[in-house]
Amino acid sequence: MHTCEIISVGTELLLGDILDTNARFLSVELAGMGIAVLHRSTVGDNPERLAEELRRAVSRNDLVILTGGLGPTADDLTKEVCCEVMGFALRSDEGVKAAIEQYFVNRSLDMPQTNLKQAMVPDGGTFFPNNNGTAPGIAVERDGKCVIMLPGPPREAEPMFINQVKPYVARFSDGAIVSHNVRTMGIGESAMAEAVGDLLDSANPTVAPYAKDGEALLRVTARADDADAADRLIAPVIDEIKSRLGENVYGVDVDSIQRRVFDMLRSAGKTVAFAESCTGGFTAKRLTDIPGASEVFECGVISYSNRIKSEILGVNKKTLAAYGAVSEQTACEMANGVRRVAGADIGVSLTGIAGPGSDSGKPAGLVYIALADGRDTFTCKLETGRSNDRDYNRYVAASRAFDLIRRYLDGSLK
Amino acid sequence: MHTCEIISVGTELLLGDILDTNARFLSVELAGMGIAVLHRSTVGDNPERLAEELRRAVSRNDLVILTGGLGPTADDLTKEVCCEVMGFALRSDEGVKAAIEQYFVNRSLDMPQTNLKQAMVPDGGTFFPNNNGTAPGIAVERDGKCVIMLPGPPREAEPMFINQVKPYVARFSDGAIVSHNVRTMGIGESAMAEAVGDLLDSANPTVAPYAKDGEALLRVTARADDADAADRLIAPVIDEIKSRLGENVYGVDVDSIQRRVFDMLRSAGKTVAFAESCTGGFTAKRLTDIPGASEVFECGVISYSNRIKSEILGVNKKTLAAYGAVSEQTACEMANGVRRVAGADIGVSLTGIAGPGSDSGKPAGLVYIALADGRDTFTCKLETGRSNDRDYNRYVAASRAFDLIRRYLDGSLK
Repeated sequence: MHTCEIISVGTELLLGDILDTNARFLSVELAGMGIAVLHRSTVGDNPERLAEELRRAVSRNDLVILTGGLGPTADDLTKEVCCEVMGFALRSDEGVKAAIEQYFVNRSLDMPQTNLKQAMVPDGGTFFPNNNGTAPGIAVERDGKCVIMLPGPPREAEPMFINQVKPYVARFSDGAIVSHNVRTMGIGESAMAEAVGDLLDSANPTVAPYAKDGEALLRVTARADDADAADRLIAPVIDEIKSRLGENVYGVDVDSIQRRVFDMLRSAGKTVAFAESCTGGFTAKRLTDIPGASEVFECGVISYSNRIKSEILGVNKKTLAAYGAVSEQTACEMANGVRRVAGADIGVSLTGIAGPGSDSGKPAGLVYIALADGRDTFTCKLETGRSNDRDYNRYVAASRAFDLIRRYLDGSLK
Repeated sequence: MHTCEIISVGTELLLGDILDTNARFLSVELAGMGIAVLHRSTVGDNPERLAEELRRAVSRNDLVILTGGLGPTADDLTKEVCCEVMGFALRSDEGVKAAIEQYFVNRSLDMPQTNLKQAMVPDGGTFFPNNNGTAPGIAVERDGKCVIMLPGPPREAEPMFINQVKPYVARFSDGAIVSHNVRTMGIGESAMAEAVGDLLDSANPTVAPYAKDGEALLRVTARADDADAADRLIAPVIDEIKSRLGENVYGVDVDSIQRRVFDMLRSAGKTVAFAESCTGGFTAKRLTDIPGASEVFECGVISYSNRIKSEILGVNKKTLAAYGAVSEQTACEMANGVRRVAGADIGVSLTGIAGPGSDSGKPAGLVYIALADGRDTFTCKLETGRSNDRDYNRYVAASRAFDLIRRYLDGSLK
């Protein structure tokens, strides 16, 4: 079986200044390809220690992937050390140099001379262009051993790995491990695990529950000779899960609830407008994370005060006085108000207490969500119970607003 | 100098199922104590590979800290392997057993028999009670080498380390290492490194540049007998950096540009309103991440279409027709419009092309930002050059909007 070792390079990692998400990202990707990772290690910007780790990794693995230490500064030494250990000479590459220069031209910036260091590449190596930075990825091979160097910033390393390195290292894969994720909202992890409890004991495919940020998912994973065979093992299990969890399942392998809602809105040819209080723009932000969001979204109003709720959204001051800003009644008027102001098909509002803590007599984590379509107004009350977790409360509230839209478009709201 | 190696144990880490936050936590804590971490490694639940890693770690360090593999199941082997490598026998400890039993009694649960495995401890070891779980922490020492085992779950390992292990390992500390971060915006990493190039060569304190998400920071780190002495070494270096980078420095050890702006707005008793196009609510979201944001923020308008820019913000249709939505002129009218609609002291607008790609003849990554205070309107043009990185373009645009507010409140805008 082929094995891979991951080496993370950088003194900032050993000082704990940054969390090593690259190692986990690569672990997940390699596991998915059926390449076993038996060791990971982290070493600082020290050439002797890096050389020692690399020699050891090469001696016991076919594939070694390093991240970090490809930057322009003097303490970025990964390339130099790898070349020494693997017996390659460094040369300046005109193509790489031109790409780096173009990177700065595109930004109307002068290229510091230090960046020329990044145009030095191993003679006989393979290069992976960096679409999000200046350091190209590099692969060198000798005696059946392959060493790959990726830049440290995840923004650069992740797309480079997915798009360029993954096909390059596919030959190290033994069979296939395939996973599909069944995503749910509106059912807790424990309730979900009870509903599908017997499935959790199966061996191939395995079914594992995960809870994250207010939603629960089931990951179904099969191992087989190839991806198609794995998919054939998985399909009936996913059908069974869907039939048990019903409308709580919002998608299989969809990126996110907002992506699902975007697709549904676009198919239905409908637009949505948001009136946000406690989420402060987070709902609109998540929908507009998606390229092309303008097809379904034109307008959001962040009404962070009662004054704005009345003046812009037309919430009746009597409603605010009688029920408070955090109430079902206010949520309904906000949803109808933003729908009218924006001229959208659907208006969706959120009003609640994000926390930490609350001085209103209502608990932090309480959020009212409403959806208005010009005929009916639907509401949803969320109580997260996490009075001190502002980020969680805001994130989950926005997720639930998307879930309300999904259920509305599905026709499952009464 | 004393050194420490951290070994993270668990197949779930190598599969990427969980992110290794313990290694970072321990790195930060040990750095703060002046104990140098030169290596970290991760190994699965495999006794041979764990023994090999541990032997190597003990041979080159005074102190080795392992996390994980102390659970009750058969594949939890850290204790057994450490005892074998360090030459200790395992015995059942009545005190530890009673503590584990009490843990279950307190929760009105039956204790599974497998948990008795956790009452087996090294004969001659030191134990750290686990107040948040069943596995005690353990230290064993031989020939001046100390090996410490901590449970894997961070909510067990972190308080155990802080309260019990830290005093225990204090004798391995050589003084203190203190870091301060000088954060900048509006200057690239390379330009910053050139401006302070000579400082990057200093040995104590060290000065290291980092770039992340469109901003650059300098980390100044000193080693001294105690934290105060380290701070005294750092202070003049930070002063020198500030004098060279001038108004590009937005803070030292501040969390974020939005936190800095929040503090400045609050001190000035001013409110801000946002009109967002390409960022789609991200700017407001980031400001309202901060508890108490309502003191400085009441209203945001997400004007994702030209229609909304005109109807709600009052942007002149002729301006849109003549210059386009993505223009300095439109940005200015949006900023003045949202200031008026919201009744805020300052109106700030963003209009640009987030990408990926662009069909307007203007490049993705081009963003115009404007700030209106009722008398003057200031603008800022951003060109990220990253035509395919929507997330980056949106994030950096919002950051630059905050930076424009900071410079305005600082009085450094002309």
